[in-house]
Amino acid sequence: MSQPLQPPTLPKTCYQMWGGRFSQKPHEALEALNNSLPYDSRLYADDLDASKAYAEALHRAGHLDEAEADKLVKSLELLRFDWIEGTVKFRPGDEDVHTVNERLLVEITGELGQRLHTGRSRNDQVVTDMKLWLRKAIRETLGRLSRVIETASRQAEHHLGVLMPGYTHLQRAQTVQFSHWLLSHAFALREDGLRLAELRERANVLPLGSGALAGNPLGIDRLWLAERLGFSGVTPNSMHAVGDRDFVVDFIYCCSLVSLHLSRLAEDLIIYSTKEFDFIRLADSFSSGSSLMPQKRNPDSLELIRGMSGVITSNLTGIMMTIKGTPSTYNKDLQFDKEYCFQSFDKLSQVLEVTDGVLQTMQVQQNSMEAALSTDMLATDWAYYLVKKGLPFRQAHHVIGRVVSLAEERGVDITDLPLGELQAFCPAFGSDIVSVADYSNNVQQYNAIGGTSSSSIVEQLRLLKKFAKDLRKQS
Amino acid sequence: MSQPLQPPTLPKTCYQMWGGRFSQKPHEALEALNNSLPYDSRLYADDLDASKAYAEALHRAGHLDEAEADKLVKSLELLRFDWIEGTVKFRPGDEDVHTVNERLLVEITGELGQRLHTGRSRNDQVVTDMKLWLRKAIRETLGRLSRVIETASRQAEHHLGVLMPGYTHLQRAQTVQFSHWLLSHAFALREDGLRLAELRERANVLPLGSGALAGNPLGIDRLWLAERLGFSGVTPNSMHAVGDRDFVVDFIYCCSLVSLHLSRLAEDLIIYSTKEFDFIRLADSFSSGSSLMPQKRNPDSLELIRGMSGVITSNLTGIMMTIKGTPSTYNKDLQFDKEYCFQSFDKLSQVLEVTDGVLQTMQVQQNSMEAALSTDMLATDWAYYLVKKGLPFRQAHHVIGRVVSLAEERGVDITDLPLGELQAFCPAFGSDIVSVADYSNNVQQYNAIGGTSSSSIVEQLRLLKKFAKDLRKQS
Amino acid sequence: MSQPLQPPTLPKTCYQMWGGRFSQKPHEALEALNNSLPYDSRLYADDLDASKAYAEALHRAGHLDEAEADKLVKSLELLRFDWIEGTVKFRPGDEDVHTVNERLLVEITGELGQRLHTGRSRNDQVVTDMKLWLRKAIRETLGRLSRVIETASRQAEHHLGVLMPGYTHLQRAQTVQFSHWLLSHAFALREDGLRLAELRERANVLPLGSGALAGNPLGIDRLWLAERLGFSGVTPNSMHAVGDRDFVVDFIYCCSLVSLHLSRLAEDLIIYSTKEFDFIRLADSFSSGSSLMPQKRNPDSLELIRGMSGVITSNLTGIMMTIKGTPSTYNKDLQFDKEYCFQSFDKLSQVLEVTDGVLQTMQVQQNSMEAALSTDMLATDWAYYLVKKGLPFRQAHHVIGRVVSLAEERGVDITDLPLGELQAFCPAFGSDIVSVADYSNNVQQYNAIGGTSSSSIVEQLRLLKKFAKDLRKQS
Amino acid sequence: MSQPLQPPTLPKTCYQMWGGRFSQKPHEALEALNNSLPYDSRLYADDLDASKAYAEALHRAGHLDEAEADKLVKSLELLRFDWIEGTVKFRPGDEDVHTVNERLLVEITGELGQRLHTGRSRNDQVVTDMKLWLRKAIRETLGRLSRVIETASRQAEHHLGVLMPGYTHLQRAQTVQFSHWLLSHAFALREDGLRLAELRERANVLPLGSGALAGNPLGIDRLWLAERLGFSGVTPNSMHAVGDRDFVVDFIYCCSLVSLHLSRLAEDLIIYSTKEFDFIRLADSFSSGSSLMPQKRNPDSLELIRGMSGVITSNLTGIMMTIKGTPSTYNKDLQFDKEYCFQSFDKLSQVLEVTDGVLQTMQVQQNSMEAALSTDMLATDWAYYLVKKGLPFRQAHHVIGRVVSLAEERGVDITDLPLGELQAFCPAFGSDIVSVADYSNNVQQYNAIGGTSSSSIVEQLRLLKKFAKDLRKQS
Repeated sequence: MSQPLQPPTLPKTCYQMWGGRFSQKPHEALEALNNSLPYDSRLYADDLDASKAYAEALHRAGHLDEAEADKLVKSLELLRFDWIEGTVKFRPGDEDVHTVNERLLVEITGELGQRLHTGRSRNDQVVTDMKLWLRKAIRETLGRLSRVIETASRQAEHHLGVLMPGYTHLQRAQTVQFSHWLLSHAFALREDGLRLAELRERANVLPLGSGALAGNPLGIDRLWLAERLGFSGVTPNSMHAVGDRDFVVDFIYCCSLVSLHLSRLAEDLIIYSTKEFDFIRLADSFSSGSSLMPQKRNPDSLELIRGMSGVITSNLTGIMMTIKGTPSTYNKDLQFDKEYCFQSFDKLSQVLEVTDGVLQTMQVQQNSMEAALSTDMLATDWAYYLVKKGLPFRQAHHVIGRVVSLAEERGVDITDLPLGELQAFCPAFGSDIVSVADYSNNVQQYNAIGGTSSSSIVEQLRLLKKFAKDLRKQS
Repeated sequence: MSQPLQPPTLPKTCYQMWGGRFSQKPHEALEALNNSLPYDSRLYADDLDASKAYAEALHRAGHLDEAEADKLVKSLELLRFDWIEGTVKFRPGDEDVHTVNERLLVEITGELGQRLHTGRSRNDQVVTDMKLWLRKAIRETLGRLSRVIETASRQAEHHLGVLMPGYTHLQRAQTVQFSHWLLSHAFALREDGLRLAELRERANVLPLGSGALAGNPLGIDRLWLAERLGFSGVTPNSMHAVGDRDFVVDFIYCCSLVSLHLSRLAEDLIIYSTKEFDFIRLADSFSSGSSLMPQKRNPDSLELIRGMSGVITSNLTGIMMTIKGTPSTYNKDLQFDKEYCFQSFDKLSQVLEVTDGVLQTMQVQQNSMEAALSTDMLATDWAYYLVKKGLPFRQAHHVIGRVVSLAEERGVDITDLPLGELQAFCPAFGSDIVSVADYSNNVQQYNAIGGTSSSSIVEQLRLLKKFAKDLRKQS
Repeated sequence: MSQPLQPPTLPKTCYQMWGGRFSQKPHEALEALNNSLPYDSRLYADDLDASKAYAEALHRAGHLDEAEADKLVKSLELLRFDWIEGTVKFRPGDEDVHTVNERLLVEITGELGQRLHTGRSRNDQVVTDMKLWLRKAIRETLGRLSRVIETASRQAEHHLGVLMPGYTHLQRAQTVQFSHWLLSHAFALREDGLRLAELRERANVLPLGSGALAGNPLGIDRLWLAERLGFSGVTPNSMHAVGDRDFVVDFIYCCSLVSLHLSRLAEDLIIYSTKEFDFIRLADSFSSGSSLMPQKRNPDSLELIRGMSGVITSNLTGIMMTIKGTPSTYNKDLQFDKEYCFQSFDKLSQVLEVTDGVLQTMQVQQNSMEAALSTDMLATDWAYYLVKKGLPFRQAHHVIGRVVSLAEERGVDITDLPLGELQAFCPAFGSDIVSVADYSNNVQQYNAIGGTSSSSIVEQLRLLKKFAKDLRKQS
Repeated sequence: MSQPLQPPTLPKTCYQMWGGRFSQKPHEALEALNNSLPYDSRLYADDLDASKAYAEALHRAGHLDEAEADKLVKSLELLRFDWIEGTVKFRPGDEDVHTVNERLLVEITGELGQRLHTGRSRNDQVVTDMKLWLRKAIRETLGRLSRVIETASRQAEHHLGVLMPGYTHLQRAQTVQFSHWLLSHAFALREDGLRLAELRERANVLPLGSGALAGNPLGIDRLWLAERLGFSGVTPNSMHAVGDRDFVVDFIYCCSLVSLHLSRLAEDLIIYSTKEFDFIRLADSFSSGSSLMPQKRNPDSLELIRGMSGVITSNLTGIMMTIKGTPSTYNKDLQFDKEYCFQSFDKLSQVLEVTDGVLQTMQVQQNSMEAALSTDMLATDWAYYLVKKGLPFRQAHHVIGRVVSLAEERGVDITDLPLGELQAFCPAFGSDIVSVADYSNNVQQYNAIGGTSSSSIVEQLRLLKKFAKDLRKQS
């Protein structure tokens, strides 16, 4: 194995993993398009981790001796410092992070470094790196989600008992508690947390050892590799493994849903922050002004959150379109997965931070909210009143509809209509109808699970806090 | 409770759940736009099931006596027969399936039917119906997925040992087994099955009892309702529950991914069905001809599968855009969820059926596949040969690159180059290089898990069959 | 040419244009997927028109004699009546409208009908039909756009002089006229009209005569055909012509933009229809009620308009994804163009009708609008006041910002602050500041083109009316 | 106007256009999200140009004297050099390019610089800057399109007479000329050029002078401004102008269509570059190798072109989703227009360059193409042969279908079938059928406009060259 060989001359000026067969270097237009370093260099640590494990696996399979493996592992660890210190310099021809890491390794270890890639392909390498990166990205995202959920819970707890109009179709519907409304958004984020946690489990299967497409013929122990790198299993088909980016699509999908949930929260808050509603006042620190109009305090933070849903969701559309109709296994089109994925992660991180800040600092205008409660919102409870008197609900609904209509024509509250007139609509009205006029009492009747009574909200808080705590543990 | 009441006159000519407050009927342009019956009537059975359970729950909470509940349940069951028999007639003003079912119930039971909707809203009703429907849709989709996986497995098992060029970038890469290629697509579908099964679990939480948005004030036992309708829990926040369509988005997302996987399979098969490749011949029954060119036999089936990925994925984009930026709780925009969802389900069902048929009936052209194996595909194995002689892989790669380049210039196979010339590139070449020329042997060396050796493929078949069987059990 | 020939037996039970080479009929799963009749039968008239012209062209090129061409033309005209009367019956195997029309023609004319398709392919036939259809669709859409623009103009003219707060970021910004706001939406629709008119011109080029892909070898005079069918030219490359669906994508794009514009109008109106704003009241006929809450009057019409933008835009994403990466010329994937296109047209037609109705019938709440004008909206004009006194604008802006802030802290209007305090901020304040307090006067100062003064609005009305009139002429 | 004023203290440490009303500075999370400098600094020159014109307009309206305007204009010109030299430094709080330019101007000119923004808002400023930028972007894109069209034309001209199989459904259809195929893609790009040129005209309307939303009250002459900045008119409604991003959406749409066209070209070329087709060989300089497989020469350039269509199109989906449902006039969501737009432009520029290079350097494998012509591709011409003998086309088609089928069963060419057997199918066959066997002759018969005959192609070349020349003139 160690007879002295005349080593073939590898190109010096630029390091490429594949030069031998080529007589021309890449055209600069292609190089510009092909260069993924601006995106994939953030994978450097994952690439080093996977390479360290692969070096050990080569040793275990007898392709490197212990000293060689050891030297590779230590050299790779040295590279990590260079990256952290920012001393890594890219050269022309460095087309991706894998090339850079191998080039640097060869600079340190010479011929030994040229042995690392034995039986490995960038095809299985990059998908492994991405999975390692994604695990961390999911963990961080879960952390951010849990913080927003906790902030919402804290605000909800603090404002327990504050009433507001609940809206459907943006029309006043029934009285609810402010906390109930706020937690409705937190529960949407809880679903996102569940979704991400499921993805983390499902995707945690090692692709390394799939080679370019056919698998590995060198006796590499993939199960050992998986354990070493924290995966719960290995991919079962190499051709599938190198061409599969579903885990990236799944992640971008999860990010998109979060961003949609935030867009709805932002929309509510934008509307609640208008002068006309005035339910919420944003902190100065989450508002912006106008270059022309001195009085303006604009909810830019919320509009950016809302608009960002387009950016993140477009990454989902994009990656799906990019993948659509490509032949199986690896095609270069798949390289775009990184741009889509990293942008989704980065932008979502930003809007989650801003959402957290907005919720922490916003001022709840209890007086405005309660002033907005109007007697037409009692209509449903009035219908229940008639139901309790024996009227079928559909008739009760019809009666109250006409009552509301009459009050509106007269420009008065329904509570202002004389009993006699009510009885003309329906004889079941009695003087006890006045008892159905206390918003606070009414709210407490909605005490089935999930309702807007305080007991229900306290239970919701318990659920969310437990969930956020669990997330934090995992993140 | 049962004093004789002068019932208010409900409108006769058209049944609407909400007429009392209105002095004009809907404009016909709005009626046309708003009418969801063409879509949502397929929910009729789910609507009846949910209503039956709700009638019982009303009884349990003391709002109906046993006879009343019983009569409602039986009458709802009668309606099911009318739907099945196709004798249900829609009337002007029947704006959705819920209205139709309530109208029909009232026609049978009179005032009693008008009591069913007590404490319920179409907001929690429709989302419950959709969840019931979705459970069945997932079950059916899992069934279709399992059939395609089984068909692929059967074909893979039948053709074990058939070799073909494996491609990356659509360029010949390494020899693989046809079965390995085919199963790579089956594994993508397996992931889809996992995803759908997770969704089924996660979404299986009952929204009924959330009312319009505030919850239920009538003592309805939601946990009992959940159990009665086969849900594993109840939604924890009513405002979230009525405005949440994530489970629909999730389902459309799952369908989109399946369709993308099928688009890649179709792309492979379209290319493999060209005269130039001729690896696969589609059955006549899955081909079409040309109106002008008599000789044509076109893979229309595969092109429709490929193109359908755009249709299904566009539903995902659509529902996300529709939801984006809507205020929380229920807004009418959410009504579009049904069109997006049903189209995705229906179209996916069609393409899965066609995919199954294509795979069952296609003819595998073993001779063409094996004729397409060329010696340049041995290059990687030649590099491993040099590695075994002690050369670092990166140098071996470079050497073989130059060997291939030379052979190409000369227009010969690499196996035709004289040993002397090989040794000029690298002295490690020996006469034993001729042993690395058997495609069949080489394939068997890829015996790490997931590789293209027969032992690996047999293990893949075991996994897939077990998976398909499990799916079938659930479906 | 007319020796008696033993005609080969064409299949009787099902009419297909391409049976000869096939030994099996299509599988029913494929037939279900492939059948485009539910969509493309609406092209019947365009198909007949194109066929009539083609029959004449065959005659002019010497392939039919005058009597034959005449008989074909008349028979095709007969078919039109059958379609109009609804007496056309589809048979199994009728895979598209072209097949049906040819089958029916052969039923009437026998062998003569079998001559019509000479030199033509469904590839150039369908794209010609679509272009004929599209011309009408554009005309109708322009008509609907012009009606909405006219309705908006009429309302704007009627309410000239009504003031309202103008919003940016949904925060009160400056006083504007209601008419100015309403016309801002009309101008967006005017752009849509321009875009559609340009498309109509650009796409009006005849593809017929491109054959399956190679062109026409029978001396057909394409320029004559173009003139006959009202096209301004012919496609210059047959391979491009048969695979090109850009004109469909363009149309769907135009529809998407219209739908986005309507979504913004709907959003404004939904917000203006809240109890909190109360600027607009929708007519009963464009509102809906709640099944549970008797008092509700929901802007369902507007929410459907808003949500529909997702549906229409998703067709754009869909067709783009379907086309992406397909090989050139005709592939069956292109068949989906019709579903995308027809749905976009139909749905857009519906929402334009509803938009028109909403605008016609909505009630403008002048009092609420004018009550919502608040003195902070004078801030910009106050800054201009200081500018006129010599202060640089940026300083004036800063001063007024502080003034507003102080007033807000105190809970008073800026007009309530004593002159002395104002002068403490900036000595340039004089007693004439009181003159900058009349919303009506201020509005009239914005008299540069496009501003909110009455003179500007009158000019806007002139432009829009002229535009709508021009559109109507064309539609 | 010039009495000495005690200037209010503007904040020193950070320059914001809107500080006065605020007591807290933006939270750093918001600042990170809100900062558009990384994107919009590329607008610096457009911002300076618009500001210069605005300074002059202020002078013409009497708000600045000539010296002041002159000084502003010259100072703005100085800033341009700083940007070009790269000496502009950003400071914390510099939230966008407008802020930076105003800050720098104030640093040079003091109080005078603070006068520039009089009557202007960032709302009309940014949309003006974007329109100025877009004009240049369109010009550059047209230049790149024309280069690709010219390269394709040159290759087509050079290879006139080279035959290849024309494909539909990726199945061999009829013989065409290689040049005809190549130009079919050029014609798609010609449409893109037309679309962009139309957009340039339609969008060339000046928004400046719209203020924040209400217009301009200072007597600014907008028509003069328009002329000064090269616009052909002014926007007619200020509320529309500040909230309108249609011109950006239109541009991204045009880019998306170009990218789809390139994706189809790339798909063709990827398939034609396979070993199995071998119609095209990419230059080394537009190929890449494999890190594992030494023999690989992958068409990475083409795969990147194909995959990029997802990236660019996703920007279209994104901006549409971002805009959807936003209230009218300016909302901060609109800020994302720049990221969507610039990425689309940059990426499209890259892929157009690479496309041009690929087409310039690819090697056309005439021998392989002509070797792929097979006699079944004569089927259509054989059918025409029978038509000329008097058979109706549909019957001729059927007969030839059976002929092809028989030949296929036997494994022979249709030209190998004995005349007697042909006559058994149809007595019209004569010995002159052998004349329909020359691919070259057949091609020349397709001489209707747009067909694949040489005369037609020469005309196509004339059209394209003229078009490309016109584009170049404009670009």
